[in-house]
Amino acid sequence: MPGASQATAFAPASVGNVGVGFDLLGHALEGVGDRVTVARGAADEGIRILGIRRDGQRVDLPLQPEANTATRGLLRFQRDQRLPALNVTIEKGIPLGSGMGSSAASAVAAVVAANALLEVPLPRQALLDYALEGERVASAAVHADNVAPSLFGGLVLCPTWDLPRVTRMPVPEELCCVLIHPHLSVHTREARALLTPEVPMGRLVEQAGRLAGVITGCYTSDVSLIAAHLSDVVVEPQRAHLVTGFADVKAAALAAGALGSSLSGSGPSVFAWCTRDCASRVRDAMVDAFGTHRVLCDAWLSAIDAPGARVVEQRT
Amino acid sequence: MPGASQATAFAPASVGNVGVGFDLLGHALEGVGDRVTVARGAADEGIRILGIRRDGQRVDLPLQPEANTATRGLLRFQRDQRLPALNVTIEKGIPLGSGMGSSAASAVAAVVAANALLEVPLPRQALLDYALEGERVASAAVHADNVAPSLFGGLVLCPTWDLPRVTRMPVPEELCCVLIHPHLSVHTREARALLTPEVPMGRLVEQAGRLAGVITGCYTSDVSLIAAHLSDVVVEPQRAHLVTGFADVKAAALAAGALGSSLSGSGPSVFAWCTRDCASRVRDAMVDAFGTHRVLCDAWLSAIDAPGARVVEQRT
Repeated sequence: MPGASQATAFAPASVGNVGVGFDLLGHALEGVGDRVTVARGAADEGIRILGIRRDGQRVDLPLQPEANTATRGLLRFQRDQRLPALNVTIEKGIPLGSGMGSSAASAVAAVVAANALLEVPLPRQALLDYALEGERVASAAVHADNVAPSLFGGLVLCPTWDLPRVTRMPVPEELCCVLIHPHLSVHTREARALLTPEVPMGRLVEQAGRLAGVITGCYTSDVSLIAAHLSDVVVEPQRAHLVTGFADVKAAALAAGALGSSLSGSGPSVFAWCTRDCASRVRDAMVDAFGTHRVLCDAWLSAIDAPGARVVEQRT
Repeated sequence: MPGASQATAFAPASVGNVGVGFDLLGHALEGVGDRVTVARGAADEGIRILGIRRDGQRVDLPLQPEANTATRGLLRFQRDQRLPALNVTIEKGIPLGSGMGSSAASAVAAVVAANALLEVPLPRQALLDYALEGERVASAAVHADNVAPSLFGGLVLCPTWDLPRVTRMPVPEELCCVLIHPHLSVHTREARALLTPEVPMGRLVEQAGRLAGVITGCYTSDVSLIAAHLSDVVVEPQRAHLVTGFADVKAAALAAGALGSSLSGSGPSVFAWCTRDCASRVRDAMVDAFGTHRVLCDAWLSAIDAPGARVVEQRT
């Protein structure tokens, strides 16, 4: 049986870094993601991007497949798997430049959709490296902290960047994530350039200890251990000023009962982890705090152990 | 019922840092440790150190209780718990300046022994802060990576130094530790002073990822994940030259099948983690490698999940 002639995949947005795990830790979000449709084309080879839309509007992203984060990995996948010409349509559900892993989600969705065109689709694990190829367009170094959670779902640790071994970690059942996207813009490259190249040794130890504490809290389902360690002492202090109102929003989240709150990826989105019973209160407090700074925002409540990418439609 | 009039406690040696967890991670060793006897004295108050011996010989360590790592915490314990005068005898089973947590073990044993003199002994967790007091003599900052494993046993994560919350982690059953103590001397203070005050950001991410990988491997019992991450890219490269033959000894351990090998604490002792089936081979290879550098050494094979301190003798 040949593979599908056309497939559409959905890949979720994600929270990169999760405060304590810069470039190492990320988790999927539910209810928001990108959809990519890949169809066998009429030509012999190559990839054509037919359109990139968001809410029905054309989005200003490159249509050359080599330059687009969504298709860069797909090009190599197509070559390796000897797929014929492909037509690609991208629907961005994730706001661009939001710190919600928008480019990662498109790259993941494209590869997951194309995989459904194979007679014998590859196992999910084999898609990671292709999906990471897209990140090489967005950022100089390759980090899996958005791609891996978007692909596999859940809270994912990517402890080595040269060899992307990823581990999906357990998350205490009572926890969820509030994600606030303020209508501000922060560019990943600029946010990265802002970081000091060196970190005091004491900060290294503190930050590594915080990551270790959060991971241990997840494995032992110890919410108070997570709460004691879920804060970023290295990156957030250097980037917080890029997001209008950040300090007040974070303070509001903590006052409303959040375990911790920090930038999602390089921002401007802000996440908070909290128990389910206070999630709406945390969300409202964060939205209100942005409001006092006259910043409009969108908000999501999501599981932390949210589902990963999946094929949502296919035709034979 | 009053507490004992005299008690002797044994506290094990320990491997601090464990390569990936500088100041954060440590594990107990079996078969080697210090013994401290604490007895109610004749005087009204104060602490007298009657003797400090190793292999029956007097050891050149301070006999003033304020200046000795073994009794500094005991002094506060005595005051807080309103104990009368105490006579203390210390038998050092752990070589001094070996990087095997010698001062930590004496401090732990002293407090554990004194605790047995109380009518209602305190829970183990309450002893940690007293035992840490001793570390303040040995080092400017307080790190629990030797004291906590010596007190509680096993592989212990101490993720925050200002608030010593400690977690004993599971260890895959098939793993054990080889500990080699070469007859060389390295001073903790000097080894610490040698470290660069700043670390490149990329190294922070790599080292934090390695710690996270080892912890995750322990919780998921994934030996290959541990092997892929058990190496120190920050501290070891700066200290390795202090230990004659270190590079060859480490290479020999890895060639003989060890998962990873690094300095124990600030050295000169070197540890290796390996599966039980190749432990003797790893030990012999390491001893031989030191031998080619004309360095004599002692060697131990130990569980990683080794028992912590305990009272071994008491009189009412």
